[in-house]
Amino acid sequence: MLNSKALHYGTVRNKIRELFEIGRQKKEIFGPENVYDFTLGNPSVAPPKEVSEAFLEVLQTMPSLEVHGYTTAYGNPSARAAIAGVFTERFGGDFTADDFYLTCGATAALRSFLSAFISEPGLEVMVIAPYFAEYSCFIDSCGGKMVVVPPDKKALQIDLDAFEERISGKTCAVIVNTPNNPSGVIYTEETLRGMAAILEKKSAEYGHPIYVISDEPYREIVYDGKKVPFIPHIYRNTVICYSYSKCLSLPGERIGYMFVPKWADDAKNVLAAAAGAARMAGYVCAPSILQQVIERCAGVLPDIRPYEENRKLLYESLKGMGYDCIYPDGAFYLFVKAPGGDDEAFCEKALDLNILVVPGVGFGAPGYMRISYCVDYAMIRRALPGFEKLIKGYK
Amino acid sequence: MLNSKALHYGTVRNKIRELFEIGRQKKEIFGPENVYDFTLGNPSVAPPKEVSEAFLEVLQTMPSLEVHGYTTAYGNPSARAAIAGVFTERFGGDFTADDFYLTCGATAALRSFLSAFISEPGLEVMVIAPYFAEYSCFIDSCGGKMVVVPPDKKALQIDLDAFEERISGKTCAVIVNTPNNPSGVIYTEETLRGMAAILEKKSAEYGHPIYVISDEPYREIVYDGKKVPFIPHIYRNTVICYSYSKCLSLPGERIGYMFVPKWADDAKNVLAAAAGAARMAGYVCAPSILQQVIERCAGVLPDIRPYEENRKLLYESLKGMGYDCIYPDGAFYLFVKAPGGDDEAFCEKALDLNILVVPGVGFGAPGYMRISYCVDYAMIRRALPGFEKLIKGYK
Repeated sequence: MLNSKALHYGTVRNKIRELFEIGRQKKEIFGPENVYDFTLGNPSVAPPKEVSEAFLEVLQTMPSLEVHGYTTAYGNPSARAAIAGVFTERFGGDFTADDFYLTCGATAALRSFLSAFISEPGLEVMVIAPYFAEYSCFIDSCGGKMVVVPPDKKALQIDLDAFEERISGKTCAVIVNTPNNPSGVIYTEETLRGMAAILEKKSAEYGHPIYVISDEPYREIVYDGKKVPFIPHIYRNTVICYSYSKCLSLPGERIGYMFVPKWADDAKNVLAAAAGAARMAGYVCAPSILQQVIERCAGVLPDIRPYEENRKLLYESLKGMGYDCIYPDGAFYLFVKAPGGDDEAFCEKALDLNILVVPGVGFGAPGYMRISYCVDYAMIRRALPGFEKLIKGYK
Repeated sequence: MLNSKALHYGTVRNKIRELFEIGRQKKEIFGPENVYDFTLGNPSVAPPKEVSEAFLEVLQTMPSLEVHGYTTAYGNPSARAAIAGVFTERFGGDFTADDFYLTCGATAALRSFLSAFISEPGLEVMVIAPYFAEYSCFIDSCGGKMVVVPPDKKALQIDLDAFEERISGKTCAVIVNTPNNPSGVIYTEETLRGMAAILEKKSAEYGHPIYVISDEPYREIVYDGKKVPFIPHIYRNTVICYSYSKCLSLPGERIGYMFVPKWADDAKNVLAAAAGAARMAGYVCAPSILQQVIERCAGVLPDIRPYEENRKLLYESLKGMGYDCIYPDGAFYLFVKAPGGDDEAFCEKALDLNILVVPGVGFGAPGYMRISYCVDYAMIRRALPGFEKLIKGYK
């Protein structure tokens, strides 16, 4: 007599959480210094000092009823105005508080947009492999059907022919995630313009807009001065999900937002429907003290140097050993071809050496594995002999 | 091409929020001291000092990555163990961390339980009038059908005959809210035993458990030493939604929990299905800093004296003027019969005098109105001449 879908998602753990649990058990047996856990996307760099200062300022100077009281469902106008200001400065345009709705992280935002766009059961949402595994749960929960665009194996951009082929009259939205989890790739402006042209053509053909949901929690984690194109300027029917989890190292606090540009088709109703979806899911407002912190830190950038050092060490070492992977421009993941081609078999072998990495199959990209490098530099060093031993076994 | 239900809930404001907005506009026109807003259930008593101290202790002594990092979906075991300890002490029994799942407030908890119990479209969830208006949105969002038990007009307990009549083979759950919003009434042990006997009989008759979802955000806001019966000890298939919003004056922070007693039918799967429902709705974990605060303040009780003084002043003054209402034992609402019998007409007239109260019709109890007394004592005093003028108009 229980909801079978809910029971399924409540009992079948996602692979990453499962591996993380195995890692915890292994640490108890072998000692934490002998287990090399590369599974989680939990930032390893402490929140910027502005964040800690903002927490204390808010707690020590504001009336506590105001700090902790209900806010409107959309969030405090002053916090949303601060975010709009950052948008105006960084992306150019005339953004206002009304374009934003504060959420409990990017997942709440993404799930609310999906619920708004999936107006009837069976509508299709496209995802581009490799993609964040949890998308399937959110699409399923809204009654939608996930359509996977297979990976472009050359550069992990978007295979535009495969993309176009999979659009149908039932396609209501496409999830785009750049910088990408799990590949670290930034989609180029050329890729995105190609995608936009296809979507415009197909929207006209089918007589309804196909929305892009841009999931951008890694927008500020980019290296070598690379730029992440602002997709709403390339394709007008783009909405954005954002989280401060990665940028400000606040993943447990659940603070992010939904953004709908004024120029999108039916913009006002899109944000209203997403707000209604959030209300229906039991969201009341984003955590109020976090709204105050974000108001003060909306423009703060992360210190990505530790991630940069990790990236360099891990990439150069693995390449030197003969591993095949793309040098990532953003996020904190390396997406590596599994020696031998079987990612699950490789990850099992790695587990025997107490190295935990995530098979690509869950990201829609079998044959690859994800290595999170938001970890301690010294742990990477300690794990390198194990990686070397593993690839030697395939030679 | 947008989800019509989501658009509906995103554009049609609930009455309380709408009145609150009117109040804001009136304050701008007439000055805040001349507007008497009794609409919101926003605590007016500051959080206990233990809460403020806990925030500072956590921020100043714990590593920030630990404070703000992801927790497991169920929440930190140590926070859940602290809550289990409070349960053991207050209610007697052998409670453990595993019985609890931390949520973003009681609404997230309630909505997750509903999603777990409504295993197919059209299943029925009973609510007992007067009831919290937002229940209808959550039941609707899970595809359920809300069945209303009309108010027991004598004492606003549960009309057990009407209750029994409305149970069908499709009934999967009953929402019980005591101390009650909007009436302030605590259901007596006698009432609850009567309800339990009916539910046991009907569960046996239909061959499946009917669960009680006990929504208890006001459990600690009770007066005159009154006790709130612990429903899982009266009816074994009772799950609990709790929020620290009212008790610790943290409504904007979204922290609460789900509780399933070990002795409930299929207990383990009930909590797992509710956890799965939360995952499907985009919840990742309850805000992590709030988990730390609750770990330190799980047993802290609120200072209810200001509410007690407000209750006395408002109740005695209105009774003296000739208003008819039940003296509330808990929460911070007075549920008053609208003079003339038409609650909406009365509330409109009150609005002309800048007095904002909520019509009972939205709570399933037309003919009544809700007056929130979690407000400034002086505001109540200033509003009394208006209340007097209003009732005189009906004499």
